[in-house]
Amino acid sequence: MPDKIDAFNEFRTDMNESILAKGTRETKRFFNLDGAVYREGALSKKTKELLGLTASMVLRCNDCITYHILECHERGVTPEEFSEAFDVSLIVGGSIVIPHVRHARSILNELS
Amino acid sequence: MPDKIDAFNEFRTDMNESILAKGTRETKRFFNLDGAVYREGALSKKTKELLGLTASMVLRCNDCITYHILECHERGVTPEEFSEAFDVSLIVGGSIVIPHVRHARSILNELS
Amino acid sequence: MPDKIDAFNEFRTDMNESILAKGTRETKRFFNLDGAVYREGALSKKTKELLGLTASMVLRCNDCITYHILECHERGVTPEEFSEAFDVSLIVGGSIVIPHVRHARSILNELS
Amino acid sequence: MPDKIDAFNEFRTDMNESILAKGTRETKRFFNLDGAVYREGALSKKTKELLGLTASMVLRCNDCITYHILECHERGVTPEEFSEAFDVSLIVGGSIVIPHVRHARSILNELS
Amino acid sequence: MPDKIDAFNEFRTDMNESILAKGTRETKRFFNLDGAVYREGALSKKTKELLGLTASMVLRCNDCITYHILECHERGVTPEEFSEAFDVSLIVGGSIVIPHVRHARSILNELS
Amino acid sequence: MPDKIDAFNEFRTDMNESILAKGTRETKRFFNLDGAVYREGALSKKTKELLGLTASMVLRCNDCITYHILECHERGVTPEEFSEAFDVSLIVGGSIVIPHVRHARSILNELS
Repeated sequence: MPDKIDAFNEFRTDMNESILAKGTRETKRFFNLDGAVYREGALSKKTKELLGLTASMVLRCNDCITYHILECHERGVTPEEFSEAFDVSLIVGGSIVIPHVRHARSILNELS
Repeated sequence: MPDKIDAFNEFRTDMNESILAKGTRETKRFFNLDGAVYREGALSKKTKELLGLTASMVLRCNDCITYHILECHERGVTPEEFSEAFDVSLIVGGSIVIPHVRHARSILNELS
Repeated sequence: MPDKIDAFNEFRTDMNESILAKGTRETKRFFNLDGAVYREGALSKKTKELLGLTASMVLRCNDCITYHILECHERGVTPEEFSEAFDVSLIVGGSIVIPHVRHARSILNELS
Repeated sequence: MPDKIDAFNEFRTDMNESILAKGTRETKRFFNLDGAVYREGALSKKTKELLGLTASMVLRCNDCITYHILECHERGVTPEEFSEAFDVSLIVGGSIVIPHVRHARSILNELS
Repeated sequence: MPDKIDAFNEFRTDMNESILAKGTRETKRFFNLDGAVYREGALSKKTKELLGLTASMVLRCNDCITYHILECHERGVTPEEFSEAFDVSLIVGGSIVIPHVRHARSILNELS
Repeated sequence: MPDKIDAFNEFRTDMNESILAKGTRETKRFFNLDGAVYREGALSKKTKELLGLTASMVLRCNDCITYHILECHERGVTPEEFSEAFDVSLIVGGSIVIPHVRHARSILNELS
């Protein structure tokens, strides 16, 4: 019953459309650039998504965590790799990150 | 169907009442001061509400965003002005602010 | 009708179990250490829970606030002491903390 | 004896050059976009710089504060307007912002 | 050779004077309120200063840490109590707090 | 003239010694755990250090950035990989991260 992921994707799609329709030329440039930095390069797309996931965890943004977990999952990040990325997030960001590890775990549970 | 705004306003009113009823003299002083700094002065109330909105977006607080959007809306902030304030928030605060631009956009959509 | 507390406790228990089952040895060490620092010592457990509550409020994490309010309540923190701890959080963290004082107040209201 | 401003400008110019020389195409796009969002539009450049200043104060970044104070000063922000923008920053961000109001004040003192 | 404390106190005194001289009525009210919330009440002044110290550590503000360590020291906080408050800050805020524990330790070393 | 790195290393070594000498058993456990999470595992030590670097950049801690750049450098992170990790940090964390990219660049310049 993957309701968190579905709810996230639906609201995200609807609102991004609305943001881009009503936004400025700069809004579009920001969204395009946000896509571009995660492309395969000197670092692999998988590594970049792991960077995005860890950044999202220490900054404590559940929506961003959901997004990057889905991207990481698609690039073949393994359960062990997820756990170790969560450990780095926990030690850097502290116990205040724990509720977001819970969220991340619930998303991973929905995926499996 | 403006349910986000209604839900926010109801919880806010109830809890602020409870906070002030059970709080100390200092709690009341803080709430009074929070009202006072947004009053018309050398900067217009409209500009101050835009400052409050941008601060709320980069600090990523949806409730505060809802509040300042309602205040900005009442002071005649136009759709174009909202979009440009969101752009400043996005560039200063980064993609971690995107979920809060989505929230802001959903509040603006409810208002229109 | 203590639904916020019940919902929090249920999700927390389920997910912590899942985190520890799937996590690494380091994950467990972090969770153990997180328990250990709040034990009675030179500072009382009650004082340490108040430190944890204030830290959670200025870092603006509702789940952490719920947890530490329950712990403080169990250690006999009085309504007056809660109010004064909220005042310190408000002045240090600013009006961006107000929505979290609302949350804290709603948890205290559920408890009484 | 404007040493803080000079030191800031020198390090900023040197390092931005180094960042752009060694960075990727995306790095350049980010810096260009960062310039573009502050241009005159539906909101005046002066208002946008005040938004940038307030965002920098609540996010507590002294270098960003220095930069936006210089930009605001060039656009004719008055002493009274600066003081009111600092008040909004203080109430939103709390006493943790005070050291940055001190920094902002020291920059304004250097300018006058 | 207590140079960090002296430098902090001198800049703080000078700038606070400048802030209050050039600020608005609301600026003064904020500073007064900031003093008032730490007064002896249901919680002791010592406990409140420990709350302020922990909040400053997890929000990672060295100037605020210096200030609250001096206040805690004056209220008789013992070395063991300081260490335990640092532990709570570390576990809540994570390794990103370590540089601020270093700063706190250097201030305590200057004091002894 | 690698003065930033030397100054960082000297203060870090001195204060860590002081922290561990005067800290509790929990302080030591935290520092040990902080070392353990970066060890080679399902993710390579190099990848974990890049996670630590990105987390430090979006959380805007110069000392942590210096530390992880030195670790990344030792694990053979290339100039191109550094630039792409900075891009992810910039887009996630926004322009408020720019002063920390400047710091990171100045550390890399000292190293070369």
